Amino acid sequence: MVTKSLVTQIIETRYEDISENALYEAKRSLLNWLGVAIGAANHESMDKLFAVAKRMGSQPQATVFGREEKTDLLFASLLNGMSSHVYDFDDTLLDTVLHPSAPVFPAILAVAENKGKSGKDVLEAFVIGCEVEARLALAVYPSHYWRGWHITGSVGGIGAAVAVSKLLDLDHEKTSFAIGIAATEPVGLREMFGTMTKPFHPGKAAMNGLLAALMAEQGFTSSHQSLEAERGFVNVLSEENKLDILTEKWNEKWEVEKNSYKPFASGIVTHPAIDAIISLQSRFQFKHDQVVSIHIIGHPLVKELTGKQVLNTGLEGKFSVFHCVAAAFIYGKAGVDQFTDECVNNETIKNLRKKITLEVDEKKKEDQVELIIKLADGREFTEFVEHAIGSADKPMTNDQLIDKFLDVTGDIISSDAKRELVDLIYKIEELENLTPFFELCQPAKSLNKH
Amino acid sequence: MVTKSLVTQIIETRYEDISENALYEAKRSLLNWLGVAIGAANHESMDKLFAVAKRMGSQPQATVFGREEKTDLLFASLLNGMSSHVYDFDDTLLDTVLHPSAPVFPAILAVAENKGKSGKDVLEAFVIGCEVEARLALAVYPSHYWRGWHITGSVGGIGAAVAVSKLLDLDHEKTSFAIGIAATEPVGLREMFGTMTKPFHPGKAAMNGLLAALMAEQGFTSSHQSLEAERGFVNVLSEENKLDILTEKWNEKWEVEKNSYKPFASGIVTHPAIDAIISLQSRFQFKHDQVVSIHIIGHPLVKELTGKQVLNTGLEGKFSVFHCVAAAFIYGKAGVDQFTDECVNNETIKNLRKKITLEVDEKKKEDQVELIIKLADGREFTEFVEHAIGSADKPMTNDQLIDKFLDVTGDIISSDAKRELVDLIYKIEELENLTPFFELCQPAKSLNKH
Repeated sequence: MVTKSLVTQIIETRYEDISENALYEAKRSLLNWLGVAIGAANHESMDKLFAVAKRMGSQPQATVFGREEKTDLLFASLLNGMSSHVYDFDDTLLDTVLHPSAPVFPAILAVAENKGKSGKDVLEAFVIGCEVEARLALAVYPSHYWRGWHITGSVGGIGAAVAVSKLLDLDHEKTSFAIGIAATEPVGLREMFGTMTKPFHPGKAAMNGLLAALMAEQGFTSSHQSLEAERGFVNVLSEENKLDILTEKWNEKWEVEKNSYKPFASGIVTHPAIDAIISLQSRFQFKHDQVVSIHIIGHPLVKELTGKQVLNTGLEGKFSVFHCVAAAFIYGKAGVDQFTDECVNNETIKNLRKKITLEVDEKKKEDQVELIIKLADGREFTEFVEHAIGSADKPMTNDQLIDKFLDVTGDIISSDAKRELVDLIYKIEELENLTPFFELCQPAKSLNKH
Repeated sequence: MVTKSLVTQIIETRYEDISENALYEAKRSLLNWLGVAIGAANHESMDKLFAVAKRMGSQPQATVFGREEKTDLLFASLLNGMSSHVYDFDDTLLDTVLHPSAPVFPAILAVAENKGKSGKDVLEAFVIGCEVEARLALAVYPSHYWRGWHITGSVGGIGAAVAVSKLLDLDHEKTSFAIGIAATEPVGLREMFGTMTKPFHPGKAAMNGLLAALMAEQGFTSSHQSLEAERGFVNVLSEENKLDILTEKWNEKWEVEKNSYKPFASGIVTHPAIDAIISLQSRFQFKHDQVVSIHIIGHPLVKELTGKQVLNTGLEGKFSVFHCVAAAFIYGKAGVDQFTDECVNNETIKNLRKKITLEVDEKKKEDQVELIIKLADGREFTEFVEHAIGSADKPMTNDQLIDKFLDVTGDIISSDAKRELVDLIYKIEELENLTPFFELCQPAKSLNKH
């Protein structure tokens, strides 16, 4: 009965029923998601998938963010879902490590563009799709994740199916069919981490969820007990028995309100140290040749996960707190550009890395760090971070989210377009259709041609 | 290392290495598969999926068997994979209940049509794709199946990816990528049985496997230990630890040689009784109004699974041995037409059903039955079936397979085309490309138009 009850709640919830705070966080989610999607638009994995779409003769129905060419709705979902996870820089629901936007926004936006849906429609579909995938993640966590499923791909398809069903205003039976069709095709083994197949997971989840909803719209039948049945999603894919989570206290709080955003493009355990060095540099602007040593005192996981000292590639840089701190010292940030092969092999940064030491302190919490910098003139500065930026206790401010968006989108879209997009997203509920939004996402080089 | 070794075997195996018997059974598999695919071409689930393909603007690249309109390669795989499983009338590897052709042939044939591949290419790709999915099914069976996975959908995508990789002559690294991409997206919860989503499973597996191979062809990366890794396919999706099955005794025997075909379109436990009544009728041609009673003595499962006596729909007829025997008495067969709502509600058949009784005999084997028919003139005939036709001990002959093909394809393609297709399939290794094959699969109504 839980799938049936859940579908009733999905059907009956209207935009007006959603809290202001949830809608506000949905807009912040969109801003963060769009930035990282545009930022990776030209990644080589995207070119490879584009080549397949072209070989299928995919029709220009929907925007691939940051790319000139459009594709059909299904490929647009796949491509946008993938690009937004390429840099591991998208949002996170920390309770389950679910990245909620990557599988859901691509499916919603493809349909919204194609059917001329409004800003309110998009926000409503996102909050509800996100709610269902997040609750489902809670229902199967942790055994599902530890068994080896990449939870973003495995529950994300159902979130996308729900969101599109809502956007298409499907009835009870068809929404239930959409959930069933999506539930039967979970995506994502954790073995794929470290390869292009990892970001493929949310992309494929978006594509599967969209396809499921489009099939259900046609009356394609499926089980009405797909989540709770003995051989349904929760039982087959987890050891948990927490089905009540799917429906209890609906509309009292929204999962999207807990969404968090990464300020830095590296593993989360490096964030307190990066935060500390940026904080010091924003006040004192030391020169790298003034520095004698930088000493980091952090949680044991910092050493375990990011203690790497010999580095060759940008990807390895993400797993080295030494590189993170050195790059953040020089650039005042730790975005995508700080984790390129070039940056990792830069002589100044390499020299600075050698001056950095790491000490483990069992008493430090995961979002805490102490950082001590000694200068050639004998001065010494200590920075203690109580809660790193982006952690649950210190969420990113709007200004910080906007800075991230401006930075991560690089030169793919124009500065003017970036500013206009930020303004548009924060008042997206006023838009009757999203045409101006999609136009602003056109890459700068394509606009120059015209 | 097992994925690596498996890929080496896939790469190194050539057409010439495959036994005559395996190639011969591959042709029989194709004949059986094509018949059931064409037979369900116009099923309402197909129309619903076609509507989605059209909405995507899917391009006419590949044949959907028995349909006039073509679609792109991915949708053709999805549609053909689905249609061939709609009537539950496709082939079976009895060790694991895997239906090997439905996920693999659609992916192969779409690419073969698009790239002009030869008959030998197609047979080679099928035998190897079938080999890998069948071995993988053995490696995860039975816990995988009992946990709730529809094994045809879950391992089938990997079979399709391997087959297409072989057809595209991908190198070691890319074939390994293709397996990884397909492994990360298993399809099929058994909860979906009884809905349109069940036949969707092999269709989606075909589509996923094809997409995986096309992505791998572009160099899209994935894990090289996707099957054996701690968080890879076998460990995440089963409790088994039988990885040796994937590679041992390669090329000594081929799984396709064990393929079996259903002579009747109902559950396998009804087959001995149907076999018995058809055998009697072919000799004596009794009239239904001569019959006083028909008594069936069979294995306990006959009653447990197909003891249904009150029937309204064609689907219910498949789960009633009484209907199976009555319909086979009248029509001399038990094909798709004998399981329509109309046939189940036919007055003559309903009356005959009432004269049929069932007795359970623990000593009967599953493929055995005794059937006693009493006539109004006092005569009595007994038929004992030692092994039902289509069972492992009594495989369908070529003539029986051909009769099934002619019957199940109905009036969708012309009688001449059916005969030519049969001839063509049995000598498909002589074809440099499959153009004549695809032309013969055009529906009769579309040919009439020209």
